[in-house]
Amino acid sequence: MSEHTLAAEPTHSVWDRSLAPRLRIAPGDEVQIECTDSSGGQVGPRSTIQEFLAIDRTRIHALTGPIWIEGAEPGDVLEVDALATRHCGWGWSSVLQGLGFLKDRFHIPHFFLWDLEGDVTRSLFPAVVPLRPFLGVMGVARAENGAFRTRPPGPFGGNLDVRELCAGSRLYLPVLNAGALFSCGDGHAAQGDGEVCINGIECPLDVTLRFRLHKQQPLEGPIVEASEKIAPDSTADAWVVVESGTDVAETARAATGRMIDLLVSRWGFDDVQAYILCSVALKLRLSQVVNEPMFTVSAALSKQVLPPRTLFPLQ
Amino acid sequence: MSEHTLAAEPTHSVWDRSLAPRLRIAPGDEVQIECTDSSGGQVGPRSTIQEFLAIDRTRIHALTGPIWIEGAEPGDVLEVDALATRHCGWGWSSVLQGLGFLKDRFHIPHFFLWDLEGDVTRSLFPAVVPLRPFLGVMGVARAENGAFRTRPPGPFGGNLDVRELCAGSRLYLPVLNAGALFSCGDGHAAQGDGEVCINGIECPLDVTLRFRLHKQQPLEGPIVEASEKIAPDSTADAWVVVESGTDVAETARAATGRMIDLLVSRWGFDDVQAYILCSVALKLRLSQVVNEPMFTVSAALSKQVLPPRTLFPLQ
Repeated sequence: MSEHTLAAEPTHSVWDRSLAPRLRIAPGDEVQIECTDSSGGQVGPRSTIQEFLAIDRTRIHALTGPIWIEGAEPGDVLEVDALATRHCGWGWSSVLQGLGFLKDRFHIPHFFLWDLEGDVTRSLFPAVVPLRPFLGVMGVARAENGAFRTRPPGPFGGNLDVRELCAGSRLYLPVLNAGALFSCGDGHAAQGDGEVCINGIECPLDVTLRFRLHKQQPLEGPIVEASEKIAPDSTADAWVVVESGTDVAETARAATGRMIDLLVSRWGFDDVQAYILCSVALKLRLSQVVNEPMFTVSAALSKQVLPPRTLFPLQ
Repeated sequence: MSEHTLAAEPTHSVWDRSLAPRLRIAPGDEVQIECTDSSGGQVGPRSTIQEFLAIDRTRIHALTGPIWIEGAEPGDVLEVDALATRHCGWGWSSVLQGLGFLKDRFHIPHFFLWDLEGDVTRSLFPAVVPLRPFLGVMGVARAENGAFRTRPPGPFGGNLDVRELCAGSRLYLPVLNAGALFSCGDGHAAQGDGEVCINGIECPLDVTLRFRLHKQQPLEGPIVEASEKIAPDSTADAWVVVESGTDVAETARAATGRMIDLLVSRWGFDDVQAYILCSVALKLRLSQVVNEPMFTVSAALSKQVLPPRTLFPLQ
């Protein structure tokens, strides 16, 4: 087993099987990988909203890689163990016109900087958001020829935004090209299920990953073996908004909207603060998908995130 | 504060504001409520599949109620505290043609009886499913005149199938008629997020509920204050199948299908057993809803439910 390091630059912003590998490793090797934030370092801890609005968005997600894994061939399974993650003490979230799950409600651009203190952030005080950093994007080169932007995820992995992928967790991906050609980036210090405003807590993230190979195993798409270390995320001890409707996405949107209303009316957050808080801490789940014609979505926010409140005080 | 009891029979199977109340209570009162299983007692612990297929399905969900809460008026909020639940040691699940989230895959009727041992069931051994009984249906009479079947949930509550509603949790519902007219039933000893095969562990359930009233408070739909006592449900320490697609419901269906395949190929369950196990223990969640045009759904099964397995053994 060898240990390697891989600096972030030069990053790349497309999935393209013709990209030259920046590092060649053997199965079993560990790599310390430096990842910029999803903007590719265009945003910093003193950026203004004007600077943020002027960044070159074609550089998103500014991935580090590709890494060539010796012996990997199509039909193999690549196992990626997230051994460690280290944030740099700051991160950012934004709201942009035309982006985000509630884009019809939130039109005005907003840029928010987070101070990260070890395992929590209090930047949206009185909310205290637990941190368990993970990479929003981990993937292998796609099977097709050509350059594909990194926004949509797929069987190759990519922009999955699965918050279970924190340190201690393991990702299985199907190998689609010789050498696998693994790349990663889009560090999130925290994120809810849904990532509703379009950002988690975006941050530069250094990670240590271990790569293993399983020869010729069937795998149709990503599987995660989730660590017990992920952020307190249970729907136990939580505020849960329950919404039913005939379209899952619209129902999830309505549930998120009602949670934002609740955070504004009961906890005094600004509308956009509440939206960002939901993006980094709200958990969207499908409570039932069979009571036709209605789906039921639950939007849960752990009570650990918020100061205690009596929702409807007794009179 | 008074304590009341309410026997299950006669049950009712529609939401109808003209139904005569079976019990009148004051705000603050507690009621021990007996609920039949969702079939209204047509299924028993020795039922055969032939008997099950012959039941009168128009009697589902066989609710207990309505309960009139003195002083309740439209515009009020009804608070329902689930103080205690008691299952009777058995339950059932089924697969029926034309019903369920994967109805295109599972056509053959199946009937399964569960032995419930306190807090777990081992009836699908080697799976060990944790039990935290809750009522799939709790609701108030709808605002409209007429009789409405109980399958679709709505702002009035009803067939929400929100598994967080176990003992220790609290449900807030908008009052839509004088007296609120609360009814409940559809006991589930366990259920996953999604309830994919269409049943949880259906069971007769006796519950103790406390009812409080909050006068003239805005509430658009159900909110749950979830107990810390809900079943181990975190996506921590779990197997998670990750699927991305352009339609949320189809993506959730594909993720469920892949989890069933995994349970069959790696743990040796029959196809239909795996489906039922998913219905009572799988957690469907929306990992991201903003990476257009793709949604990402995670289907998570706690490792506590399954015997240890190495997914891809090292060669």
